[in-house]
Amino acid sequence: MGGDSGPRVTLPAILSFARQNQDIQLVIVGDESQLATSLPDSQSQLENIRLLHAPDVVEMSDKPATALRNKQQSSMWKAVELVANGEADACVSAGNTGALMAIGKFLLKTFPGIDRPAICKTVPTAKGHSYMLDLGANVECSSDQLVQFAIMGSELSCALDGSERPTVSLLNIGAEAIKGNEEVRLAATMLSENPHVNYLGFIEGDGIYRGDADVVVCDGFVGNVALKVSEGVAQLLASTLQASFKDSQYGRILGWFARPLLRNWHNKFEPGRYNGASFLGLQGAVIKSHGGTTAEGFISALQVAKEQVDKSIPQRINERLARFFD
Amino acid sequence: MGGDSGPRVTLPAILSFARQNQDIQLVIVGDESQLATSLPDSQSQLENIRLLHAPDVVEMSDKPATALRNKQQSSMWKAVELVANGEADACVSAGNTGALMAIGKFLLKTFPGIDRPAICKTVPTAKGHSYMLDLGANVECSSDQLVQFAIMGSELSCALDGSERPTVSLLNIGAEAIKGNEEVRLAATMLSENPHVNYLGFIEGDGIYRGDADVVVCDGFVGNVALKVSEGVAQLLASTLQASFKDSQYGRILGWFARPLLRNWHNKFEPGRYNGASFLGLQGAVIKSHGGTTAEGFISALQVAKEQVDKSIPQRINERLARFFD
Repeated sequence: MGGDSGPRVTLPAILSFARQNQDIQLVIVGDESQLATSLPDSQSQLENIRLLHAPDVVEMSDKPATALRNKQQSSMWKAVELVANGEADACVSAGNTGALMAIGKFLLKTFPGIDRPAICKTVPTAKGHSYMLDLGANVECSSDQLVQFAIMGSELSCALDGSERPTVSLLNIGAEAIKGNEEVRLAATMLSENPHVNYLGFIEGDGIYRGDADVVVCDGFVGNVALKVSEGVAQLLASTLQASFKDSQYGRILGWFARPLLRNWHNKFEPGRYNGASFLGLQGAVIKSHGGTTAEGFISALQVAKEQVDKSIPQRINERLARFFD
Repeated sequence: MGGDSGPRVTLPAILSFARQNQDIQLVIVGDESQLATSLPDSQSQLENIRLLHAPDVVEMSDKPATALRNKQQSSMWKAVELVANGEADACVSAGNTGALMAIGKFLLKTFPGIDRPAICKTVPTAKGHSYMLDLGANVECSSDQLVQFAIMGSELSCALDGSERPTVSLLNIGAEAIKGNEEVRLAATMLSENPHVNYLGFIEGDGIYRGDADVVVCDGFVGNVALKVSEGVAQLLASTLQASFKDSQYGRILGWFARPLLRNWHNKFEPGRYNGASFLGLQGAVIKSHGGTTAEGFISALQVAKEQVDKSIPQRINERLARFFD
């Protein structure tokens, strides 16, 4: 039910994903009557989807604490509950991030050694892609938390990309050891002494997109700003490029010929392509889709969920943490 | 002497700027013998440039405290000193940012009411441009400092763009009042009660490039990351676009025809175009050029200095602060 457009976007995505992944059972949690009427007859025949009624909805404006107290009958709560009860392997939502985090933490709990989950996403780089966390779950982070993020991000990179010793960097405002705030500096010391993490040192903002590290660790405030600034720059550059191809007759003709090439380029960095952030550290897979995503973007988020389950990400993170805290 | 390439980049820029601005007297501070040999004979005839010898140099790796203690004979120190003594109206350096800040603060002092200067830069937006501060001078900022930045940024926008009541936003990770850390939330309360600032509310990372506010205020850690992330994304997008025009014979031919258009687009966001950050809050104009800039970029930094002097930025900021603290 969540996201800027609700089932109008999520439902077509779910149906398309269900058709392409007949081995996956999908439970659509939400207002049954609304979902039933939105569901095309032909599609409701799909054997691998079923509806689960939830009379209530977490609003985008709900505070996490409010959602936790009053929204046990919401689609979000019930979807996370399916994971907590073992009835589902993963939950995907385009709804309120703070509420999803709070409900996830309450129903699923974090693994031992993890204070709070971190939001982690794949970002495109010149070398392929990297993982970045935290992207907004933790406004202020202790050095201990930054170290936890580094361990979880490492394991994610191992699991998804098969890299044996993925490189980890801390996002900072300079490469020198004297730069940055106390938490970052202390985390750097802890990580450089930690045999479980292949710590490279500090990374600056531009290093992320050069692909200088496989895993980039930062607090949620900085990470969220970095992510949204990136989206903003990409949008500005794409729209300005488009405009410059429309500026003149010459440009318009060129633009027509260049269209496949430009579309290809644009798609490569289209935010929807990388949609689907995971809450690492929860004892279960919870995936957050961007609220303003398209159906294609929501399919990406569903694929992230599938990947998390296929590669047993939560379990692997737990095992890695257990080794670390041993 | 500063920057990644030293006089090899700065000198041609200074000469070109001197030729174009015959009414401006330029003092080139640095190692006289090195500068004299680098200076083409024809150019040393320019009447509006002179050399000032400085036997020492602040290295990029020098800590601010070291520069302050041991580098009184450096080109950076002597250049700032010219401003402090009233012998120059502005100082431009491509050198060590932290040292420039420390020496600037020591020799020029900040205006009453300003704890520490803020680094401020023009950023391109969908609507034209905005001003963003702090970009790295203050890793952690109190709410008082954020308010000081808002006032200084406002005055800068008034002075440079002639806007009467420029809009000011605080960079945050959500538009809601409950988001963000304590300093940002407290600063928001202070700004919304402040008649001297046209405070709009919070802005998210993507809002900067949409041009949602004329002035964007944040702490130096977040601002520096945002700036460098922006550069990284722009580089990645530009290089990928270039690559996709080289991927095929078809692309190469198209690319040839599209070259002027693409160059135009690229130039619009070329970091050099916006090179030149000012230390707002100092009792004098000090401009920091990107260390890795080109000669063209260094000319931009010189132009920023000219603008600061022409529009009496430091004096205007002082007057605005005096009204505010009255």
